[in-house]
Amino acid sequence: MMNVDERIEALRKLMADRKIDVYYIPNQDDHLSEEYTADHFKCKSYMSGFTGDAGCTIITKDFAGLWTDGRYFTQAEDELKGSQVELMRMRQEGVPDPLPFVIEHTPENGLAGFDGRVVSASAALMLSKALQAKGAKIHMSEDLVNKVWKDRPAMPEERLFVLEKKYVGETAAERIAKVRKDMEDKKTDVLVLTMLEDPCWLLNVRGNDIPCTPVPYAYAMVTMKDVFYYIDAKKVPGTVAAYLKKNGVKVCAYEALAKDLAKLHKKTIWADLSTLNAELYSHIGQDNSIYNAISPIMHYRSVKNAVEIKNLKNAHVKDGAAMVKFLRYVKKNADKDMTELSAQNKLYELRAEGKDYIEPSFETIAAYQANGAMMHYTATESSFAKVYPKGFLLVDSGGTYKDGTTDITRTISLGKLTAEEKRYYTLVLKGHLALMRPHFLSGTTGNNLDILAREPMWDINIDYQCGTGHGVGHVLGVHEGVHGIRWGLPTPSRPSVPLEAGMIVTDEPGIYLPHELGIRIENELLVVKDTKNFYGQWLKFENLTYCPYDLDAIDVSLLNDVEVDQINEYHKEVRKVLTPYLSGKDLEFLKKATKKLKK
Amino acid sequence: MMNVDERIEALRKLMADRKIDVYYIPNQDDHLSEEYTADHFKCKSYMSGFTGDAGCTIITKDFAGLWTDGRYFTQAEDELKGSQVELMRMRQEGVPDPLPFVIEHTPENGLAGFDGRVVSASAALMLSKALQAKGAKIHMSEDLVNKVWKDRPAMPEERLFVLEKKYVGETAAERIAKVRKDMEDKKTDVLVLTMLEDPCWLLNVRGNDIPCTPVPYAYAMVTMKDVFYYIDAKKVPGTVAAYLKKNGVKVCAYEALAKDLAKLHKKTIWADLSTLNAELYSHIGQDNSIYNAISPIMHYRSVKNAVEIKNLKNAHVKDGAAMVKFLRYVKKNADKDMTELSAQNKLYELRAEGKDYIEPSFETIAAYQANGAMMHYTATESSFAKVYPKGFLLVDSGGTYKDGTTDITRTISLGKLTAEEKRYYTLVLKGHLALMRPHFLSGTTGNNLDILAREPMWDINIDYQCGTGHGVGHVLGVHEGVHGIRWGLPTPSRPSVPLEAGMIVTDEPGIYLPHELGIRIENELLVVKDTKNFYGQWLKFENLTYCPYDLDAIDVSLLNDVEVDQINEYHKEVRKVLTPYLSGKDLEFLKKATKKLKK
Repeated sequence: MMNVDERIEALRKLMADRKIDVYYIPNQDDHLSEEYTADHFKCKSYMSGFTGDAGCTIITKDFAGLWTDGRYFTQAEDELKGSQVELMRMRQEGVPDPLPFVIEHTPENGLAGFDGRVVSASAALMLSKALQAKGAKIHMSEDLVNKVWKDRPAMPEERLFVLEKKYVGETAAERIAKVRKDMEDKKTDVLVLTMLEDPCWLLNVRGNDIPCTPVPYAYAMVTMKDVFYYIDAKKVPGTVAAYLKKNGVKVCAYEALAKDLAKLHKKTIWADLSTLNAELYSHIGQDNSIYNAISPIMHYRSVKNAVEIKNLKNAHVKDGAAMVKFLRYVKKNADKDMTELSAQNKLYELRAEGKDYIEPSFETIAAYQANGAMMHYTATESSFAKVYPKGFLLVDSGGTYKDGTTDITRTISLGKLTAEEKRYYTLVLKGHLALMRPHFLSGTTGNNLDILAREPMWDINIDYQCGTGHGVGHVLGVHEGVHGIRWGLPTPSRPSVPLEAGMIVTDEPGIYLPHELGIRIENELLVVKDTKNFYGQWLKFENLTYCPYDLDAIDVSLLNDVEVDQINEYHKEVRKVLTPYLSGKDLEFLKKATKKLKK
Repeated sequence: MMNVDERIEALRKLMADRKIDVYYIPNQDDHLSEEYTADHFKCKSYMSGFTGDAGCTIITKDFAGLWTDGRYFTQAEDELKGSQVELMRMRQEGVPDPLPFVIEHTPENGLAGFDGRVVSASAALMLSKALQAKGAKIHMSEDLVNKVWKDRPAMPEERLFVLEKKYVGETAAERIAKVRKDMEDKKTDVLVLTMLEDPCWLLNVRGNDIPCTPVPYAYAMVTMKDVFYYIDAKKVPGTVAAYLKKNGVKVCAYEALAKDLAKLHKKTIWADLSTLNAELYSHIGQDNSIYNAISPIMHYRSVKNAVEIKNLKNAHVKDGAAMVKFLRYVKKNADKDMTELSAQNKLYELRAEGKDYIEPSFETIAAYQANGAMMHYTATESSFAKVYPKGFLLVDSGGTYKDGTTDITRTISLGKLTAEEKRYYTLVLKGHLALMRPHFLSGTTGNNLDILAREPMWDINIDYQCGTGHGVGHVLGVHEGVHGIRWGLPTPSRPSVPLEAGMIVTDEPGIYLPHELGIRIENELLVVKDTKNFYGQWLKFENLTYCPYDLDAIDVSLLNDVEVDQINEYHKEVRKVLTPYLSGKDLEFLKKATKKLKK
């Protein structure tokens, strides 16, 4: 097996043969999924050694760089050690973004290369235009990493299943009709669905090609008459094939989309060029016109319907019961032979006991003390820390059940804490609580609310260097939607979007001190309607997550009356909701963990 | 004199003669100033009867509408009574924006009219394009209101003066060089300055054509070689003419800009099409190319330099001393024969005692009880309320001094308050205090911070229906800059802009209950650098305004410890800063008004 530097040299040889000056290796798959992809697509990790789920690698003849964002700096520093790969800290002063770097480092009349299947049409068009200005070109017809990567994992071939109406509230026929109405409104003839979640939502099917996300690798194309579903036939069991046929859906080979796109003439095609890959785009004839916009399904997915809400609340109760059992287990075993890995496995077990459980909604993060500072740290069989009865174990986890997807973080004190540790925990909790409280007018964006959660940390000049919250899918990706709770200037990929009733956001501020500690507290919140009056429609958040905060970690002197009351109300509710699902020592633990806090 | 309905009929006749279907009458002057303009330009008021400073009037053959925003709803309801003019409440559900309304109500092959000098090039281009799609056209060569308005006020002719370097910190030559550098960076040959404040800033001159804003009606055009200043020669005294000549500035007739624009060929012209009027734009030849962007001066104006900051702090101290004298006067005389008008006049007098005082920075709002609910209410000689020793007098006022411009609001209790009144006052104060506290990273926008001030009101489902804060000019307009503290989606005219050290914002949340009460508390805040660390450059606010809050109006039970401490710290500072400027009973009053609040 080659080490990272050897891989880079092998790639540089291939680049030299083709006169490629800069080779760009994103973290994406054929559908431009970024964060969760099949192992087959982990090219940027293979070429850099960095295993985190965001970023990209860029290679030139005398430079190799790994771009990633603040959540991963500590992890990347560790993983890049010993190779020539330089860490490019995204959004830090003086660090160029990857594509501008590619442009800058492609010489006049030079060549920039990438695999056209894992770069979006919009990025490729932008690159191509910018390079043209200096007489340079792009080379996108080859996947050079594939030629270096001998033991590359194959594409997954997991099987589809149908999610019945009782889980999703609408039939595929109803959803197809909804989408066709949108196509009509936008005067489009064809809708190409490229995001992996979109065909799943439309057809009420789920798959298992990506770890922790119940989706298959598939495209769909909707016309006013037909629905074509592009998927490897091996993944479609007979019952699902029959279900699809009954719904008028035509199953086609995964690779057939390129050919079908080439057959379109004089059509108005609704496609999102930021998720349609450059290779597929190249097959669309010039006599068509493109309506370049995110698919209407993104919005439908973000705004949950009443049946989905009823179901996902149910999922959260099951999840909360598993979490309470886990909290007790961890606190009890902190002074025994526990590790991050054994704790993590215990949590997988406890969640799996829940009715209709499918899988974890993402790889559990169980990070002890300083490991918690790596926002997306994951303990593995080969690398994990032992846990001691002091300090914090940060556990960020979730489950996908047939009735919903959960995402929760608790930072658990394992023994005596320092005053500083308690102070940090309490500040994070203050931010977390503050985001739950506002009443807000329709039209309010996550950009308007972020400061509520962030302020206690900013007050001591500490930032958690990531958004405060993201949308959550319904039996789909745990990160979903264009809405979110973030600060700063909106960007095209992170626009400012008004929150609407039915949307879910996570509320997860934190404090991460590299090499020291990591604290995060996360609940999911549902946007619900409040009163409507002279000023307009008011909204507020309803809490979805039921699991105690850690009373042992709170410095009550830092809380005001509003916060103390809020914690007590929450704990009363948690106790009420979870009591029927717990017994014996777990129930005793719940009572203790939710006892009234006094100032 | 005609009443409003008669004016509308007269206009309709002129429209019919020309076959104009819809006539659009904005609130703007030739420079697209909106809020503060000479009386000559108050066409939308003349045609509707509404005297507020924002909105527009639109007339068709069977409809007359006045568009304005939430700050003015109550005032507009009152003023439109008895005429046919309908109030169109902007940004309320179901109310179309004015230009879409014009488009919608211009029939196929019809004609929409307006005076091309008071509509921006960008708006005219948009209208023209939209109407073209239905075969309709625009008619913009005539000012029809001028033909109806017999006793229309003439254009003002006030005289210029020079603001010396000790007030502004930079010479005109230095400022011109700065701007030419920007022109070079953007590869432009010509910069057209259309906003009234821009030539003032560039040349360090001020005028007096607009009440309460020290600017003359003038344009400027900058090339790499010349600076042309378009202004009525009558306004330029000999000393100022000499000063301008010495700085290489060529004074030209105000009307000459159109001709000079027509002379440009094959140039790249930097112009802001949202402040360049459609008439002027029509003179620019097609062989030029337009770089359509806000002038670089907007940013320079927003970010105050060290000399400006030193000076404006001085202005705020003088202003605070006048305000304390005023507070004592008002509280003492509430049970005597005081009116909104007499209070207002007293405040004008007290401010005028300040060294280097020029004029009020805007018309003082002294609004008693329910009048305070009209956000931009002004008592006039013919209409004002008597004041009684109970409830609130809201006073929003400011001064322009040679060393700076101020803007402050205090809501003053005149006697016994109800528990509800105290509660509302305290909630507004809580919001006001909250916006002063944050530490924030460079990149933070006003859109991120607004909720801090707004939350206490939103918590009880009340909104103040306007932004929380705006920029303040330096011896220029009291409303300045594209930055501000606002919520919701950014718009082209109210974009999201990161706050920078040197920017000023006001902090002015409020509660306005129509026909009941109005409370607003306003300080000015300066953005200053805080520490720089691992996370980046931190910023925070420094308070600029020195004037006590009203201890008689605070319900201390609604405040937490942080808030009580903050009020006490502020009052200690106010006492320290203003003591040298007050004596006798005023000083006694200051001590009482800043005494320590106990929870």
